[in-house]
Amino acid sequence: MAQLERIRGACLIAQSGGPTPVINSSLYGIIKAASRHSEVTEIYGALHGVSGILRDELVDLRMITPRDTELLRTTPSSALGSCRYKMPEPEYDDTDFRRILEVFKKHNIRFFFYNGGNDSMDTCNKISRFMKNSGYDCRVMGIPKTIDNDIYGTDHCPGYGSAAKYVATTMMELYRDVIVYDYPQILIVEVMGRNAGWLTGASALASAYGKGPDLIYMPEVPFDIELFLKTLEKRTRLGQSVIAAVSEGIRDKDGIFISEYGSLDSPSVRDMFGNIQLGGVGATLEQIVRRRLKVKLRSIELSTLQRCASTLISATDRAEAQMVAERAVEAVVAGENDCLVGIKRLPGEDYRVETQLIPLREAANFEKKVPDEYLGDDGHSVTKAFIDYASPLIAGEVEIPRENGLPLFADLSYLKCVE
Amino acid sequence: MAQLERIRGACLIAQSGGPTPVINSSLYGIIKAASRHSEVTEIYGALHGVSGILRDELVDLRMITPRDTELLRTTPSSALGSCRYKMPEPEYDDTDFRRILEVFKKHNIRFFFYNGGNDSMDTCNKISRFMKNSGYDCRVMGIPKTIDNDIYGTDHCPGYGSAAKYVATTMMELYRDVIVYDYPQILIVEVMGRNAGWLTGASALASAYGKGPDLIYMPEVPFDIELFLKTLEKRTRLGQSVIAAVSEGIRDKDGIFISEYGSLDSPSVRDMFGNIQLGGVGATLEQIVRRRLKVKLRSIELSTLQRCASTLISATDRAEAQMVAERAVEAVVAGENDCLVGIKRLPGEDYRVETQLIPLREAANFEKKVPDEYLGDDGHSVTKAFIDYASPLIAGEVEIPRENGLPLFADLSYLKCVE
Repeated sequence: MAQLERIRGACLIAQSGGPTPVINSSLYGIIKAASRHSEVTEIYGALHGVSGILRDELVDLRMITPRDTELLRTTPSSALGSCRYKMPEPEYDDTDFRRILEVFKKHNIRFFFYNGGNDSMDTCNKISRFMKNSGYDCRVMGIPKTIDNDIYGTDHCPGYGSAAKYVATTMMELYRDVIVYDYPQILIVEVMGRNAGWLTGASALASAYGKGPDLIYMPEVPFDIELFLKTLEKRTRLGQSVIAAVSEGIRDKDGIFISEYGSLDSPSVRDMFGNIQLGGVGATLEQIVRRRLKVKLRSIELSTLQRCASTLISATDRAEAQMVAERAVEAVVAGENDCLVGIKRLPGEDYRVETQLIPLREAANFEKKVPDEYLGDDGHSVTKAFIDYASPLIAGEVEIPRENGLPLFADLSYLKCVE
Repeated sequence: MAQLERIRGACLIAQSGGPTPVINSSLYGIIKAASRHSEVTEIYGALHGVSGILRDELVDLRMITPRDTELLRTTPSSALGSCRYKMPEPEYDDTDFRRILEVFKKHNIRFFFYNGGNDSMDTCNKISRFMKNSGYDCRVMGIPKTIDNDIYGTDHCPGYGSAAKYVATTMMELYRDVIVYDYPQILIVEVMGRNAGWLTGASALASAYGKGPDLIYMPEVPFDIELFLKTLEKRTRLGQSVIAAVSEGIRDKDGIFISEYGSLDSPSVRDMFGNIQLGGVGATLEQIVRRRLKVKLRSIELSTLQRCASTLISATDRAEAQMVAERAVEAVVAGENDCLVGIKRLPGEDYRVETQLIPLREAANFEKKVPDEYLGDDGHSVTKAFIDYASPLIAGEVEIPRENGLPLFADLSYLKCVE
């Protein structure tokens, strides 16, 4: 098995996709683990993901100051920059891949780590295949990262626990704000999650351990606007305030996004790549409810706050983000290749996990949705099984280094690209 | 001076207006200080502000468990409930005031504390006047509370420091999110503040001590949409990402709210009291910018999150919220009446404050705006004098008691109304 031969060379990590509060803990894990192995001659980072590789913009991560290295553990959002660059299939157009090979050869990159979501695992798999077909020995490992928690092959994704902690905590705080007056109010809170309701489901943790949303709507369950209005009408008529947590990607039974219901009033917005920008489902629902019910009403979009909040990092999530990265280094040094480092939950009452390697071709391009056993029968709740699943992931507090009452973040802008 | 005679009787506190993260620290201060004085026979709280007094809904605050009493110090949003009830002038219609006198007499209320913003100080003043004219000896004290920081007679208001810390921290986090890709993005962040820009100005603390917004627009400076677009266009053409912090209440030179610029697309929304609901200036600006510039763009409304976040309570703010409440108790017991307890900043390099009593008739119904010396000449910044003013107010961290990874909040729903 040639693949299991040991090689020496530089390692390279790139960060991709939407940021998370703990993505830099994986970066920290790579730096720590790579420093322990004599097989790793250099520790490089690519600026802005695969785009930075294509532009040969690599920085030497050993030039990061000890202070900034430590701060990476509490600094949200990709410290090396990210990208949303979609790679073509190498079989159809291999220009990018040949360029990557060229850059890898130039810097003798033999270990490559891509830290990202589903799309990035796909990119990672393509690069791995191309390297193999070119006869260039470079071991590739995907490190999962997403607040959406929708990557296949892992019990949960680093990034999810901290975002879930943010969502659940925020819901508890918003609950306190909503009940403060002596008349019923409706609050609609829009949570990220285009196709999977994991993060919206986390708002149920607020109600499980304190007080939080009454109604939880996830993309896995077709949304019925008339039923929603009836439920709101009934509860507010009884004098109750209501918090509804809604995924940005909820759809009706015909598969139409609820956020598009508003398009008669204002046309759907496309982003600079021509994709329809979702979001706005909260505002859309607010408009619809306002037309039908006479009640105090507000909608809030948690927006990017839920993926960049540093103050509510889950200690468990942070430890696991570092753990999967360290395992990635150990794996490639030991000769493993073309895998994703997943998290496996061990049986038993106490929460315990270990890492597992899953072939990238199995993991890439599957989106893991919330399974039926986690969805309440009423269509607007989660089950106890979901609460049991999600609870350990938000556990543990992280102390944030602060100065002047504000957080200190790592700033790597002093790193120069290597020649 | 009959007013300075010592009397014995019950005290009553009511919370009013929009919540803050430290309003319950003032409640805690009242309970602590009142417990020290034999002149105070009972410690009552009114549910939902003055509305609860009118309905004779008073609870005995000595029935709060020791655990909940301690939790009040980290529990955001009025634990007794709030109201937005506007009192008539007693000279025109004294029905409410006669009812309040009746309830006060029934429970022998001799010390009354109203914890609120500008409107509440006015209510407080009217009640005080009515009591005096009725010959009923009840000492009234206003305790300031508002994230808006717009109360006259105090260097700053309890509630502002914590909201400012939330806004500044969030801006630092959003900055990290905005710069993550390798193309320029524009982020418009809408901050509360209808007539005063204090809270929006606090976003400049992010840039002063780290990285944050480039452009800060406050209601004190007329907003010029064409200049705004030109500034954005120039910066993004240079490849820079931009964060603009905007007060919900910014107006153009003709006094028209920018949030109303969007009313051609969707008519202004009125709340259940018929007031035009502000907010939406971020979304309005987003629409206008999107029509003119081809650039990645997002708007975020911090909404009620900025007034109910428990995680970023300023230790300074919390201590002062308690301090003004304790001073209020000392003052009424000593015979003072009809004042607001303000905070006075002492001269010198180190931040030191003391309390001061300001007659309510002087404080009520003035809105303190950000003075010229704090506004940058360019129309979209604050001066170093503002940074020096605001910095100490966000200083110091507060540890939040947590269980299951989530905050523990005081829940006083077990309190029964006294007969």
